[in-house]
Amino acid sequence: MTKPYVLGIDIGGTNTVFGIVDARGQVVASGSIKTLQHLDFDDYVKELHSAVQRLLLANDAEGKIQGIGIGAPNANYYTGEIINPPNLPWGDRIPIAEKVSKAFHGIPVAITNDANAAALGEMTYGAARGMKDFIMITLGTGVGSGIVVNGQLVYGHDGFAGELGHVVMKRNNGRVCGCGRTGCLEAYCSATGVARTAREFLDARSDSSLLRNLDPEDITSKDVYEAAVQGDQLALDIFKFTGEMMGEAFADMVAFSSPQAIILFGGLTKSGELLLKPVRESLEAHLFPIYRGKTKIILSELKESDAAVLGASALGWEAKYRAELPAPLPSQPAEETPLQ
Amino acid sequence: MTKPYVLGIDIGGTNTVFGIVDARGQVVASGSIKTLQHLDFDDYVKELHSAVQRLLLANDAEGKIQGIGIGAPNANYYTGEIINPPNLPWGDRIPIAEKVSKAFHGIPVAITNDANAAALGEMTYGAARGMKDFIMITLGTGVGSGIVVNGQLVYGHDGFAGELGHVVMKRNNGRVCGCGRTGCLEAYCSATGVARTAREFLDARSDSSLLRNLDPEDITSKDVYEAAVQGDQLALDIFKFTGEMMGEAFADMVAFSSPQAIILFGGLTKSGELLLKPVRESLEAHLFPIYRGKTKIILSELKESDAAVLGASALGWEAKYRAELPAPLPSQPAEETPLQ
Repeated sequence: MTKPYVLGIDIGGTNTVFGIVDARGQVVASGSIKTLQHLDFDDYVKELHSAVQRLLLANDAEGKIQGIGIGAPNANYYTGEIINPPNLPWGDRIPIAEKVSKAFHGIPVAITNDANAAALGEMTYGAARGMKDFIMITLGTGVGSGIVVNGQLVYGHDGFAGELGHVVMKRNNGRVCGCGRTGCLEAYCSATGVARTAREFLDARSDSSLLRNLDPEDITSKDVYEAAVQGDQLALDIFKFTGEMMGEAFADMVAFSSPQAIILFGGLTKSGELLLKPVRESLEAHLFPIYRGKTKIILSELKESDAAVLGASALGWEAKYRAELPAPLPSQPAEETPLQ
Repeated sequence: MTKPYVLGIDIGGTNTVFGIVDARGQVVASGSIKTLQHLDFDDYVKELHSAVQRLLLANDAEGKIQGIGIGAPNANYYTGEIINPPNLPWGDRIPIAEKVSKAFHGIPVAITNDANAAALGEMTYGAARGMKDFIMITLGTGVGSGIVVNGQLVYGHDGFAGELGHVVMKRNNGRVCGCGRTGCLEAYCSATGVARTAREFLDARSDSSLLRNLDPEDITSKDVYEAAVQGDQLALDIFKFTGEMMGEAFADMVAFSSPQAIILFGGLTKSGELLLKPVRESLEAHLFPIYRGKTKIILSELKESDAAVLGASALGWEAKYRAELPAPLPSQPAEETPLQ
């Protein structure tokens, strides 16, 4: 029998946020712990388990969790491991699905990376309900992506498909990207990419701009947004530049999977039409003819504060991995799910 | 009960080739008609039906066809129509699945474009047997593609996904492409693209080359291949240029679907290692780190003369579309499949 709730856990470099979610996508209750408090992974899992346990008890949800979904950087859906995470201290291969399932006495666990979780969240509870083909693009410090084809997340043969922040947009003289290559979409169209564009434009141009009142090294995408809202031409041109490149990148993505929509999520989307208008115009201008006028550019419908937990939780409904547990005591019938 | 054969039909601009194929991918018998002999589509279907019928009778295959698969340019899997075909005279929306199914008394028909059919053929009978994630790239007059994710062809929301010949590789000063845009992969890495590169190199360079003995306008990719085999440096550099760009394009495709292999098919692949070596080197050099060393570049295992029919036939096994036929005569039981 399906239980009424799933647990969503989002592991970020600073906080681990978790929530109890029902089938309609309501976050019944949520909590968090500091991710880096424990250098030992087992200690981290122990603390996570106690914190979640308290939340379950307080909300009468013990024994009512169908599955646990975890969103984490570099999480591999197939192996249940976090592989070479850049900002986590627990080693190169962290068997998180197994350890968490064991801590929760065998509740099934599924894991994936943050952007894939966002796509699942959108499909289960948000703007992509009813869509079988769409692409989720997360615009934050980096550019992430989760691709859905035929109603299924695209994991690829190794579980790592969907790094669309790292398609190459400038093949000559491109910006250095965090991945060690040059010219990646992420180096231009992330929040930090927008700030880099601001510094470049301020150097290359001589017109006045509100942004010239700031120390160039401290400029953020939010500063660019605020200047643009006040009609600052240089700031408006930064959004135009960013949106145009995004549209060009999206045109190539459409040639791949012909999605019904590309859904944008993350801090940069707060700029709304400032960004969306040039994206849409550039996409249409660059599309292969057969695709024109078909793919929508829309914003996520999930509240940003809930989205990470909701996305991870969506994976909980389909979780299958169960840690092997010690055989139950003879007094318990073997078929029964162990108590949580 | 499954019948022992499928029928594969490949509709090209000149010939329509068809064959009876068994479950092991043997082409039991094949034939062809001229595609453009009839300006009226119904007449074309009538001639196709008679020619196939003769083949079925001659091979004791009447009543033994499970389904019909058709590969055709601009064929839409979902609607069963050929939409705006550039080289066919039968109108803008040709309801081919319906008409052919009707002509064959209700045998189910499925259609898709040539490159998707090639991918299905490779998965069913060729180099991609057992693969769930791969990309087929056809290198002919144009560059086509068929993408398989999770064991399924990627059709997209509109049935037209997978036009990877039209991702943009040169965003500035790119070559004009047949699609009306500039800088597409196809404008560089098709057989005709290789010939264009030869003309560009001959203009831009002054070193001697066997290719200078030919009228530049008549140079083909085969000429470039033959010169390269003889050690001609300019010809070798043309393959290097082509392979490098292909590798860069493939690196972006891997970031999308992380395929186990990219399978190459078509005339240009006859150049073998001349092309494959720079493709492989360039792919590895340009891959996002997490993908390095994982995606193979391999050649199709289907004989070129059989491949189009085999690819189309593979679709026949899963064909579901049945034309609505007139009600059977009262003497026939209604449940029975009408005679062919």
